[in-house]
Amino acid sequence: MTTAETTSQVQQWTNLAQQLRVDSIRSTTAAGSGHPTSSMSAADLMSVLMLSHLHYDYDDPKNPANDHFILSKGHAAPLLYSMFKAAGAIEDEELLTLRKFGSRLAGHPTPEIPWVDVATGSLGQGLPVSVGIAAVGKYLDKLPYKVWVLLGDSEMAEGSNYEAFHLAEHYKLNNLIAIIDCNRLGQRGETELGWNTEAYAARARGFGWNAIVIDGHNYEEIDQAYRQAAETTDRPTVIVAKTIKGKGVSFLADKEGWHGKPLNQEQAEQAINELNPAARSMVYPVQKPNPAKPAPLGEKKPLELPRYELNSSEATRKAYGDALVALGAANPEVVVMDGEVSNSTYANEFAKAYPDRYFEQYIAEQQMVAFAVGTQVRGKIPFASSFAAFLSRAYDFIRMGAVSQANIRLSGSHAGVSIGEDGPSQMALEDLAMMRAVWNSTVLYPCDANQAAKLVAEMADHGGICYIRTTREKTPVIYGPDETFPVGGSKILRQSDKDDAAVVAAGITLHEALQAYDQLKSEGINIRVIDAYSVKPIDDETLLAAAAEAGGKIITVEDHWPEGGLGEAVLEAFAQASVPMPQVIKMAVESMPSSGKPAQLLEAAGISAHDIVQAVKTLVRGVK
Amino acid sequence: MTTAETTSQVQQWTNLAQQLRVDSIRSTTAAGSGHPTSSMSAADLMSVLMLSHLHYDYDDPKNPANDHFILSKGHAAPLLYSMFKAAGAIEDEELLTLRKFGSRLAGHPTPEIPWVDVATGSLGQGLPVSVGIAAVGKYLDKLPYKVWVLLGDSEMAEGSNYEAFHLAEHYKLNNLIAIIDCNRLGQRGETELGWNTEAYAARARGFGWNAIVIDGHNYEEIDQAYRQAAETTDRPTVIVAKTIKGKGVSFLADKEGWHGKPLNQEQAEQAINELNPAARSMVYPVQKPNPAKPAPLGEKKPLELPRYELNSSEATRKAYGDALVALGAANPEVVVMDGEVSNSTYANEFAKAYPDRYFEQYIAEQQMVAFAVGTQVRGKIPFASSFAAFLSRAYDFIRMGAVSQANIRLSGSHAGVSIGEDGPSQMALEDLAMMRAVWNSTVLYPCDANQAAKLVAEMADHGGICYIRTTREKTPVIYGPDETFPVGGSKILRQSDKDDAAVVAAGITLHEALQAYDQLKSEGINIRVIDAYSVKPIDDETLLAAAAEAGGKIITVEDHWPEGGLGEAVLEAFAQASVPMPQVIKMAVESMPSSGKPAQLLEAAGISAHDIVQAVKTLVRGVK
Repeated sequence: MTTAETTSQVQQWTNLAQQLRVDSIRSTTAAGSGHPTSSMSAADLMSVLMLSHLHYDYDDPKNPANDHFILSKGHAAPLLYSMFKAAGAIEDEELLTLRKFGSRLAGHPTPEIPWVDVATGSLGQGLPVSVGIAAVGKYLDKLPYKVWVLLGDSEMAEGSNYEAFHLAEHYKLNNLIAIIDCNRLGQRGETELGWNTEAYAARARGFGWNAIVIDGHNYEEIDQAYRQAAETTDRPTVIVAKTIKGKGVSFLADKEGWHGKPLNQEQAEQAINELNPAARSMVYPVQKPNPAKPAPLGEKKPLELPRYELNSSEATRKAYGDALVALGAANPEVVVMDGEVSNSTYANEFAKAYPDRYFEQYIAEQQMVAFAVGTQVRGKIPFASSFAAFLSRAYDFIRMGAVSQANIRLSGSHAGVSIGEDGPSQMALEDLAMMRAVWNSTVLYPCDANQAAKLVAEMADHGGICYIRTTREKTPVIYGPDETFPVGGSKILRQSDKDDAAVVAAGITLHEALQAYDQLKSEGINIRVIDAYSVKPIDDETLLAAAAEAGGKIITVEDHWPEGGLGEAVLEAFAQASVPMPQVIKMAVESMPSSGKPAQLLEAAGISAHDIVQAVKTLVRGVK
Repeated sequence: MTTAETTSQVQQWTNLAQQLRVDSIRSTTAAGSGHPTSSMSAADLMSVLMLSHLHYDYDDPKNPANDHFILSKGHAAPLLYSMFKAAGAIEDEELLTLRKFGSRLAGHPTPEIPWVDVATGSLGQGLPVSVGIAAVGKYLDKLPYKVWVLLGDSEMAEGSNYEAFHLAEHYKLNNLIAIIDCNRLGQRGETELGWNTEAYAARARGFGWNAIVIDGHNYEEIDQAYRQAAETTDRPTVIVAKTIKGKGVSFLADKEGWHGKPLNQEQAEQAINELNPAARSMVYPVQKPNPAKPAPLGEKKPLELPRYELNSSEATRKAYGDALVALGAANPEVVVMDGEVSNSTYANEFAKAYPDRYFEQYIAEQQMVAFAVGTQVRGKIPFASSFAAFLSRAYDFIRMGAVSQANIRLSGSHAGVSIGEDGPSQMALEDLAMMRAVWNSTVLYPCDANQAAKLVAEMADHGGICYIRTTREKTPVIYGPDETFPVGGSKILRQSDKDDAAVVAAGITLHEALQAYDQLKSEGINIRVIDAYSVKPIDDETLLAAAAEAGGKIITVEDHWPEGGLGEAVLEAFAQASVPMPQVIKMAVESMPSSGKPAQLLEAAGISAHDIVQAVKTLVRGVK
């Protein structure tokens, strides 16, 4: 570039940056809330990115060759929306609907907006998700796109970013470029590291990243850093940019007390005057990506699920692994990840069969869920697994996955006290509650291997956050391999013309219920046994019929705390029905379990066949 | 030390290490499960620690001068229990009850054992908890104790450890010494970094820690590293020890496929022969701490809670902050932490009043909850706060806090759609479900400032995991400052002799219910309005009476997803009652919210006064 060209380029960068600042102020002032100063610190960084490095077709956001831009510091949404306006993607009129009811320009970005891949706003999630997007680009799609992520400095306290650091380095994601907007000021004052940009760089280098420290308001430095990052071939790059919060306006720049505050009309006018009153209506050219197509996929094939012999014995977690392998053969879009327990969850079977589509996450469950979310941005069908207890580690990521309207599938193994000797730290007893309370989620809990395999297959075609709970122990195969198990359904396994009560169970407790049935039958008491394998949505119809036909007496039994699990799902089903409400006894794990044999722990928790027999007798005889 | 002394010392270290290995094998073989090889890799590290550096009085585990030892790699429990035996704290007979039903020696350590501070087994939690224990020692108790933490190498993939790295450095916790047992092999094969001990050290140094790389089987190196760590005055130290999994036994050492597997009887005998068949019954001297007392505390004073004027308007989050300040004045054991949003949660009021007892955690919610757990190990009364949505980030830590039987208090602000413009990423809509499904938890949700202050005060005296949900918006003060609100209670705010239905609400929706009452009354419909401020435990008695006296018609209304929250808590209360079950209509947030004014979002979610009026009419008139 000649000096003249440079000057002209700098002028253009400057003009756009000032427009982004002006529009961030205008939109937040119109909204009466929002984060103008957090937007202004990164305006120069974004101006150079947009004009000179990002390759993105705003007319075709699904173009596979597009770069990806993730605004991890989601509260800088005004900056992002101002970029959309500057790219000609939205009109000024829409920009000014920021944060208003009915506008797609929410306080933090969501994929309601076509140019937004994932929702952000819970800090420390943008980078882990980007790792997934970048890995797909490098290893599966083999596309030249880059993934640019803008992070705030405050969010560098979140451990999840270091999970991303380690995994991105492990997978040598040179197509991933993180930009830290070090504006020194967090929500409530100075961040831990302030303007110590070298400290951020030292951390990143400690994780094997390429780290470049720059002045985030020096256009040449920014441009050169992006160039250097884009040319790095063996590792991801982080650009640590020293910036000034509220940059460009005298009474905002580096001032405390301005986080998350809009300017009033008068302040806004003064600020805009200081910036560039003319800079508000330009549409700037953005480089489109060179046309490119994802690497060709293998062919889809008919699904051939594993088949387990009736009355044999197998763990549902094993069926999960077997079914994954079958899905892998049938559909080349299926990808699998696991948090270094794949020999327990049986995700390792997929890893062996399709190593190219398996991504080890090591013991980093937050990164694992984020990775899954990242892969589905590029249209993959991700399955991610760990011990069910450890999915609680990633709950905020699952929650945000729902806000992102992501389609991901999670498998939690080793649920409940029935895992036995490992003790309570390894026992998921809250996973059903946790997963039910996710928007648009599906919660499945199979009791045998054929059922598990069928449900795994359904998950592949199912949208939203889809969760399957599997069991450590082998359980009897009680369904034939041709049985079907639609999501939202249930199975009535035992019934008579004259049922005295109905027992609703799922997973491990279903087998206890069947044993209880035999014993009760020998004593002249008939129970209906319902397998509620679909905990959410639950099969209202079958439950209502059971209440009507089994004397209005229902017992639920689950290897889970009493709150939020199967029992409450059943109550929920009855809640708004206009039929007479049944009497419901909920059996669940009430006290903190210890170690022991699975049977001992089921007994100690009061959810064994023996306990069900007692509960039925009490209920049927009307004695409390 | 002379050479002769050194030799003798090395011999003693060796003998103990071999005994720890032998006992780890014997106990897991007796159990038929467990992790002998993960115990053996760290036996030398632990032998030197126990004999030469740890100061601990096993006869007096509550001695404030005791060092703390946290086994973060909780699956090496056999090693820990073998140490207890070698210290004479337990007998060999008890050691061999490992993992058996009824034994306190569970598969992973829990505080059922008097020498265990916190439960471990969910990896990546030991170090964050230790940060809290170390901070109390350095800043509050001013005791010379050290906190030693043994970590596995696999768990270094957990981001939470880096949250601990940053916070420990920030607080210059030179009394914190982390030991990473780099045995190269994780559960399913090699760890990400294998034996690249320098890579771990580089990460730690990137976070400003003192890092020492050693051979974890070289006694002199271990001893010297501990000494150097103990003498470091300005920062925490990590000792990265290269070790061999299964060290000491030819067919186990550095072999894959042995994770979490006990030896059979024959293998055990062979292994013990290779180690030291004689080394099993020695009791070794452990250095007791020098007597020391915690720094004297200020005096306890009578609690003078803030008082809000009836019919004024205040946010419950503000009352949370005000009440913290009052508690701080009354009780010098109260400590507060927050995840860099203290000006939103109002924890900043405590920070200003009692800076010495306030610990900023930056945006690291996992570390924050772990820190709280650490402080209560030393008898403090911790309150920790963030946006309620972001407590989901720490769910695994909260879960493990319950396994640890920890007494911690959590405050989640900005709950529900009523936060308004910030959008769904900032709205907690699953927190009630998440917190209810924690063992022994208490879940409180105040609707006004006086109630909030009273509940905060009760939390200080309450055990277990105690959660309060606060609201962003100011709400009318409807209770006088002398009203009482026992945990487990509720308030009937409106009732008549002839109620047509009862509306159960809490927090923000309580005010909607009161508005609905007025409108319905003007139309000749009487509703009972119940303030269910104690969501768990819930006031069964009042609910049952309401059902009996209000025509068996109940409406619950909550600013939360339909699953696991107030509505299900109410259903739960009715479930096992032997009274006729009421008809229950649950009003909750069903669709993904966007941005907007609080009132617009309550309306859009269908939980506004208007919606309650409609629901009551439908219910009372019997029309669906």
